[in-house]
Amino acid sequence: MNAPDTIQPRMQPFLAATADFAGAKDSARAFLERCIADLDAWEPKIGAFVALNLAAARTAADHSTERWRAGKPLSPIDGMPIGIKDIIETIDMPTENGSPLFAGFQGNRDAASVAALREAGAVIVGKTVTTEFAWMHPRATRNPWDLTRTPGGSSSGSAAAVAVGAISVGIGTQVFGSIVRPASFCGCFGFKPTIGAINRGGSHDALSQSTHGPLAASLPEAWQVAYEISRRAGGDPGFPGLCGPSTCPTPSKPRRLAVLETDGWAVAAAAAKEVFAEASARLKSAGVTLVSREESETIAAVEDAIHDARELSHNIIAWESRWPLNTYRARDASKLSQPMHDLSVRAEAMTLDDYRRDIKERDRRRAVYQALAAEFDACVTLSAPGAAPVGLDWTGDPAFVIPGSMLGVPAISLPVLRDGGLPLGLQLLGFADTDAALFSTAGGVLALLRQG
Amino acid sequence: MNAPDTIQPRMQPFLAATADFAGAKDSARAFLERCIADLDAWEPKIGAFVALNLAAARTAADHSTERWRAGKPLSPIDGMPIGIKDIIETIDMPTENGSPLFAGFQGNRDAASVAALREAGAVIVGKTVTTEFAWMHPRATRNPWDLTRTPGGSSSGSAAAVAVGAISVGIGTQVFGSIVRPASFCGCFGFKPTIGAINRGGSHDALSQSTHGPLAASLPEAWQVAYEISRRAGGDPGFPGLCGPSTCPTPSKPRRLAVLETDGWAVAAAAAKEVFAEASARLKSAGVTLVSREESETIAAVEDAIHDARELSHNIIAWESRWPLNTYRARDASKLSQPMHDLSVRAEAMTLDDYRRDIKERDRRRAVYQALAAEFDACVTLSAPGAAPVGLDWTGDPAFVIPGSMLGVPAISLPVLRDGGLPLGLQLLGFADTDAALFSTAGGVLALLRQG
Repeated sequence: MNAPDTIQPRMQPFLAATADFAGAKDSARAFLERCIADLDAWEPKIGAFVALNLAAARTAADHSTERWRAGKPLSPIDGMPIGIKDIIETIDMPTENGSPLFAGFQGNRDAASVAALREAGAVIVGKTVTTEFAWMHPRATRNPWDLTRTPGGSSSGSAAAVAVGAISVGIGTQVFGSIVRPASFCGCFGFKPTIGAINRGGSHDALSQSTHGPLAASLPEAWQVAYEISRRAGGDPGFPGLCGPSTCPTPSKPRRLAVLETDGWAVAAAAAKEVFAEASARLKSAGVTLVSREESETIAAVEDAIHDARELSHNIIAWESRWPLNTYRARDASKLSQPMHDLSVRAEAMTLDDYRRDIKERDRRRAVYQALAAEFDACVTLSAPGAAPVGLDWTGDPAFVIPGSMLGVPAISLPVLRDGGLPLGLQLLGFADTDAALFSTAGGVLALLRQG
Repeated sequence: MNAPDTIQPRMQPFLAATADFAGAKDSARAFLERCIADLDAWEPKIGAFVALNLAAARTAADHSTERWRAGKPLSPIDGMPIGIKDIIETIDMPTENGSPLFAGFQGNRDAASVAALREAGAVIVGKTVTTEFAWMHPRATRNPWDLTRTPGGSSSGSAAAVAVGAISVGIGTQVFGSIVRPASFCGCFGFKPTIGAINRGGSHDALSQSTHGPLAASLPEAWQVAYEISRRAGGDPGFPGLCGPSTCPTPSKPRRLAVLETDGWAVAAAAAKEVFAEASARLKSAGVTLVSREESETIAAVEDAIHDARELSHNIIAWESRWPLNTYRARDASKLSQPMHDLSVRAEAMTLDDYRRDIKERDRRRAVYQALAAEFDACVTLSAPGAAPVGLDWTGDPAFVIPGSMLGVPAISLPVLRDGGLPLGLQLLGFADTDAALFSTAGGVLALLRQG
């Protein structure tokens, strides 16, 4: 392992700090300045941001300070410093999609989630680095735990910026592995909600498996941010939006968890398997029943159903990317990366009938998974096969994460494991439209594993 | 009635003309020039276009001419002159959304449907006038049958331009009454596909009831254009896309049609009811069984389910419009029309829970309607309560059209009726994802009523 930076990354949870915002001791502006100090210290090393608007952030934080002092915050996240993945439009900054084709592009509006965040009083600090079009080609953000390693992708900048305390929450998106994987590699909390739970209007990820979600400094603020967005902007049109209470659901020790190996187990590092086994043992000793594929036909059927989730998801994403990739190719093919060309080639080899077959097969697999809901509180697995790999050319293996994306179910990554001194996430998978229940379970698991 | 223009509007169907494109007698370029001649004659009077790109259209038509002469057209619509509703992005023209807030806006890409059309060889002539954000506020297009009357909305320019032969097909969108109503008022064919059947990527109508569809000079080209788009761009992500054959389904005389009154009947003009009765009588005499609410409990239940479709749809649209309306208000509220402000006020009075209740109720109503599929080939009703009303401030009553929008089912308007010498459409409503069957029925009905 390469030596980590001498200063360890440290997150800055926001919700706990607001208790002092009513008095003179602390304020939203002071909180922002602490974040900016971390930003100044880390950003030259990690490159998490594409654009910053600190002047606007300071003004917004000052307004928030006044509201807290007056006892009238707009929401629990009033004043929270937030970063926005650069595939999501913001009226005061360009949206470049991680692509030279969109250099300087102005969408003329705040995306639905950004508008909702501002309405809730949140402080938009900047645009965080995304891989090209939230797909595979990375844009040189570095992992703050080891600058020679990837932060994961595609929500690379959001994860890295949260990890170092430059923001409390970064908005990410996941269609393959893009929230849970970088959360795992950077040691922050990641929440990918149920498909459709957060309005993606004004974002450039119009894919049927894609979901917006927070990378966060604490579990409660992951919930709170998702809740505040959905309350104001709803879910995707036609979807019910995030269902659940107005503050983070109370932690609750699960009774039964299904252990999923996924295709990730075959490629997981020995050390990762070991820490997963240790965590499992601790949960068992606390009275949680863990059941594996060997002990349950239902789980075995699910393991079959999520096998090769990558291939099926890849096809679905390819067809759904045919447009706008064909228009980007027509504009300037030389500005597309090789992975983007490869995706385009895959798309061009497909027909609408192929796609119909694939989404039907996805529906079938989702139904198989749903059967677990009758027997288990949630599923548990790793968030990644190990710590972030060395190198900036590859954002790491999403094998553990794709099943949740394909299934459209909520997923949470808890930063409770370590692999060789580096962060590794424990992933919990829930059931569609019961994201709140997954937070209760995640809170319960977190409490048990932190008690240590 | 005000005197219509001395020259009657005349459509220019494209598909029939292509039979001569292989030889020297006719060509895609010559067809385009005939369209441009009509455009030149009519556009100053009707104002159907926001932007034109005739140079690009002529170049595209020349390429098409060569392909037809070589016996290698890209598709049956290769060379077809098409207009694009100005809420749908085109790389070579601005997308202004019928709003001063979007004056000159460049989306930097072709929308999915536009990219697919170009790939099929279609000739994109220009951007057609839309009401503001495809909602109610009109933008001064006139009805070519009587310049003192509305062309209907929101796909105003697409309908008017097709009616006068300036284009063979105009791409429209419908969330309330926006394809079928202008088709009825302007005397062209209108097709609103099943929800999700055509990819709306790159269009500014992200509402759960909104659908793209053609206003067309003939029934076969309505099908062909929708098919060519869906084949290449698919449906909305996660939807199966338009299902059916590669050329317009063969006309087939329906056995049984359900007659729906809808809320429109109460406001329909006596003359409109009369011509509907005449058409019904002709269908009956040709052996088609027509069944009304009085004769069928299933139909009576459906009439109940579609009663006040306007209120339910209006609420759903309002909530789904909260964003981006709030961002437009923030930018410059003075540039929004009163109907847009009203929609915004309605949205702000709603909560996510209200919306959840509304989409659940919509699901219930859709299930009630679906029961008809077991007994009937399709439903039949008027497309509008009468001919286009006088005045340009109001796009007319959508009471007959909203049910199809709310139900998410395919709808076709056939220009086979007249009210006081002006066009009036006969509307057929089908069942979700069986758009091809509706075309067969529509073709059968058209043949029977034209024999007349």
